[in-house]
Amino acid sequence: MVRGTQDGGVTPAAASGRPEGGWRRHLPILEWLPGYGRADLGNDLLAAVIVTIMLIPQSLAYALLAGLPVEMGLYASMLPLLAYAVFGTSRTLAVGPVAVVSLMSAAAAGQVAAAGSADFVAASILLALLSGLFLLALGLLRLGFIANFLSHPVISGFISASGILIAASQLKHILGIKAGGQTLVELAPALVRGLGDTNLIVLAIGAGATVFLFWVRRGLAPLLRRLGLSPRSASLLAKTGPVLAVAVTTLAVWGFQLTAQGVPVVGAVPQGLPPLTLPPFDLGLWSDLAWPAALMALVGFVESVSVAQTLAAKRRQRIRPDQELIGLGAANLAAAVTGGYSVTGGFARSVVNFDAGAATPAAGAYTAIGILIATLALTPLLAFLPQATLAATIIVAVLSLVDLGGLARAWRYSKADFLAMLATVLATLGVGVEIGILCGVGLSILLHLYRTSRPHMAIVGLVPGSEHFRNVLRHKVLTTPSVATLRVDESLYFPNARMLEDRVLALVAGNPALKHLVLMCPAVNHVDMSALESLEIINQRLKDAGVTLHLSEVKGPVMDRLARSHLLAELTGQVFLSQFDAIRALAPEIAAAAGRTAAA
Amino acid sequence: MVRGTQDGGVTPAAASGRPEGGWRRHLPILEWLPGYGRADLGNDLLAAVIVTIMLIPQSLAYALLAGLPVEMGLYASMLPLLAYAVFGTSRTLAVGPVAVVSLMSAAAAGQVAAAGSADFVAASILLALLSGLFLLALGLLRLGFIANFLSHPVISGFISASGILIAASQLKHILGIKAGGQTLVELAPALVRGLGDTNLIVLAIGAGATVFLFWVRRGLAPLLRRLGLSPRSASLLAKTGPVLAVAVTTLAVWGFQLTAQGVPVVGAVPQGLPPLTLPPFDLGLWSDLAWPAALMALVGFVESVSVAQTLAAKRRQRIRPDQELIGLGAANLAAAVTGGYSVTGGFARSVVNFDAGAATPAAGAYTAIGILIATLALTPLLAFLPQATLAATIIVAVLSLVDLGGLARAWRYSKADFLAMLATVLATLGVGVEIGILCGVGLSILLHLYRTSRPHMAIVGLVPGSEHFRNVLRHKVLTTPSVATLRVDESLYFPNARMLEDRVLALVAGNPALKHLVLMCPAVNHVDMSALESLEIINQRLKDAGVTLHLSEVKGPVMDRLARSHLLAELTGQVFLSQFDAIRALAPEIAAAAGRTAAA
Repeated sequence: MVRGTQDGGVTPAAASGRPEGGWRRHLPILEWLPGYGRADLGNDLLAAVIVTIMLIPQSLAYALLAGLPVEMGLYASMLPLLAYAVFGTSRTLAVGPVAVVSLMSAAAAGQVAAAGSADFVAASILLALLSGLFLLALGLLRLGFIANFLSHPVISGFISASGILIAASQLKHILGIKAGGQTLVELAPALVRGLGDTNLIVLAIGAGATVFLFWVRRGLAPLLRRLGLSPRSASLLAKTGPVLAVAVTTLAVWGFQLTAQGVPVVGAVPQGLPPLTLPPFDLGLWSDLAWPAALMALVGFVESVSVAQTLAAKRRQRIRPDQELIGLGAANLAAAVTGGYSVTGGFARSVVNFDAGAATPAAGAYTAIGILIATLALTPLLAFLPQATLAATIIVAVLSLVDLGGLARAWRYSKADFLAMLATVLATLGVGVEIGILCGVGLSILLHLYRTSRPHMAIVGLVPGSEHFRNVLRHKVLTTPSVATLRVDESLYFPNARMLEDRVLALVAGNPALKHLVLMCPAVNHVDMSALESLEIINQRLKDAGVTLHLSEVKGPVMDRLARSHLLAELTGQVFLSQFDAIRALAPEIAAAAGRTAAA
Repeated sequence: MVRGTQDGGVTPAAASGRPEGGWRRHLPILEWLPGYGRADLGNDLLAAVIVTIMLIPQSLAYALLAGLPVEMGLYASMLPLLAYAVFGTSRTLAVGPVAVVSLMSAAAAGQVAAAGSADFVAASILLALLSGLFLLALGLLRLGFIANFLSHPVISGFISASGILIAASQLKHILGIKAGGQTLVELAPALVRGLGDTNLIVLAIGAGATVFLFWVRRGLAPLLRRLGLSPRSASLLAKTGPVLAVAVTTLAVWGFQLTAQGVPVVGAVPQGLPPLTLPPFDLGLWSDLAWPAALMALVGFVESVSVAQTLAAKRRQRIRPDQELIGLGAANLAAAVTGGYSVTGGFARSVVNFDAGAATPAAGAYTAIGILIATLALTPLLAFLPQATLAATIIVAVLSLVDLGGLARAWRYSKADFLAMLATVLATLGVGVEIGILCGVGLSILLHLYRTSRPHMAIVGLVPGSEHFRNVLRHKVLTTPSVATLRVDESLYFPNARMLEDRVLALVAGNPALKHLVLMCPAVNHVDMSALESLEIINQRLKDAGVTLHLSEVKGPVMDRLARSHLLAELTGQVFLSQFDAIRALAPEIAAAAGRTAAA
């Protein structure tokens, strides 16, 4: 069926994709809670149990990575999960502490306070508050597109470099030595200097746990399947590996009284509900931490949205990025007022939550309850948990994030993307996480500007037997000396406006027979004032040289804008709707030849 | 005559416009000196006399504006002109001190040394050296495109604001008071506070000279024409106005012994050849001044190239921007080693040089000789030249640069350009020249990124009777529910990659009958790695939804790049050379209907 636009086809409303408005759109819980049924409950409870078992060691370990008391990891895994369940749009995202954001939190807090001090803890809580406010503001103002400036190579390079940094920072716990440093440049020599002090018992625990956890990742699930479990059960059961490692090493430390041998343990952890906390109101501190908090929020958001979108697509669900900002913002605010620290959606836990069958965000709420029970019941047992085990948990988790093969893929596809990624990796490893990401973003923008400042332009001719025009250098096309068509493959704006002048004048100087020049503009998405002035200059200079300037295939939005200038009134030639119209008017013999060729 | 590409038409060589290579291209003097004739000599000598008469008061006045001893203005008007005559490509550009660069030089030197001190003079000379080295480097590396980042609205706003700042800074000389300050915010209150100290004799000289010079601009040429002179002679003779003002006020001060009445004069000026100077070799100072020197170089270059191109086009000559960098760089180095300060091509003087008939850069060399003679002969007379007269010369010259009407034009054409221009004007007036220009450039870049981050996309249909596709919302076109064509009006790169995902998924969700989605890419000039990943995700998600993804009108360079990725292998649909090919294959009834409509 063939239709005109008026009676259907693709309508603009169908294409806009805006969800319903009003305050209800900010409470996604209203979309699923009314229809919540018994089947959902069963699925969500099972997923919550598995995620809770996975989250206990992770929340302790990431708090350690963030330089905080381990209980703050537990606190960050309660109220924030409830807040996300109310405000988040992903059905399966598992919110809580994650490795990369924990590293960024440690780096940012370390810039304003000594590691381990009360000020350091206060700064970490403030970072969660500021991140939360920033995310909320972006969500309410619908400014989520800002996160898009973290390009794929930059994020990918940043995550890989962070993984390496984190693993390196945990080696000291595996060796049982002291070694400080925020960057690989500082960490590596400190580790080498400390090697002599290695505590062999700590090393045995740490290396043993690491090897065990790697084996759990690779070997346990196949073993369980051979023992007769279904693949899904085997895979989920294998997630209990870290808890097993924690239990065994804690028992060993307790049973053999290894604390007397200098094995560092987590120590006394306060038992009970999360405290109510308020971050310090110190304007100087707020402004010092605002920028790192914004970066942490953006990095956390990008990672979280990416995993949420991937999982949603598998079940034909959709997430709303602007509402995700609000959900993650609420989760961070919840962390800040209950003694937690910065949280976001975690990649590995979300995948486990999804695989375990979580049907609604209620699974996150049940996980929060699970963590609460664990905090109340298990904290006395944590006193003998060796830090080396937590370090092993972290190392095994983050090394799976490292994907330096992305560098090779970027090199093959685009040297600019490769450069941005390499700069991010090197600056993150060598200077620090904030500089690393800013370096990558800045270089991405500069390389983009450089590329658009030297636009590709092609002389085009008519493809025989069609109304289509292609590059004379790439295709066998029809041209005539009196008419030249220059296709400009870039928006015309200040970085490239003067280059267009040069190119056109060179073209005219090299073609004495030229009578008409057509600028073909299907790829010109914008003409700014600098380019407008260049076009006016080109028009005037061509007029002086006896050459008529025409435009073709000017886009609607560009035409609207040009109509507000003097260019169209002063243009020596015409504006053609299509390039074929231009050739039919200026060189009818070419149009006819194309037709003849088609008939032949 | 109709030809294929192979046998002529527009050839790529003709379109490249590269001038001849080798070292000779860096010595443009070789292009005109061998053919230099008697007629050229006459023309150049006349132009040189007129420009010299104009340049004497200007060079003294601009040195005063730069906070330097007046003789440095004369020194900057000798060897630099010879250097430009050897290395510059414009036949008519008049190089020397100019107002805006003098203001920038004063601001930059004032940041590292007290005004009037020997360090201040040394810093000003160093600025010329650094600007010269920067320009030379850009020219040799062919990096002149960097200047393009100074967009038209930013330069225009900067020049206007600088004109206002300069005029305000000279008011104290007209009033005979002390009033310091680098910005309008500092200058205005200082002037108001000082009003009570106004020296009425100074005011009489200054205001008299200002009114006289304004009348010379507007009224003298018409008067001379009425007295029987040819329009050209009248116009050129009117340029002697400033020299007349200098002579009359100097005589008045000398005759009436007005220095005893507190009239500030230029005072003793050393007579003789320019000294040989070497800027201080102080690495800290070099790094402090590197950035301001680069900005001065870029601003001077943009202004100079713009006037040079305008004048060259009037005589069908061409200038080579990369060689202009070398010419201006050599001129600044020449200034730095002979006691001068930063120079560039001046707008007003170049126009006068052109109008007076200058035929070759030799006119500049003769001007340098004229200034040398003046320095040797006239400097004793300058002792009684009142500063108020020089201030009047500056004010009348710079007020012609102020064009705030540009703000209104920018507002009508583009709000983004308006914002960039307004920010430049306000920051230049309120904070300073360097911040002003950096503000404008930064905002221009941010606004560009913001715009490209939300690209225009249009659902298009076939224009009846053609093979052309246009927006369904703007044109009456043919569509069918099973095939949607989305034209993406922007390069696909990291700021907008995820937006494309959202748009496509919304489109598919809103059209249950959809079987084929064609992404029409004539405006997609680049696909970076972030966008490549988005395209792969879109392809996968559409596959899951039973929709085939096709591409059409993908540009050659983009296709080359995509061929290095997995996208084309995994694409569910095809890549069509033209959108009409796509419709003919996917919805032949639409293609046929278009043909029928054409036949009807």
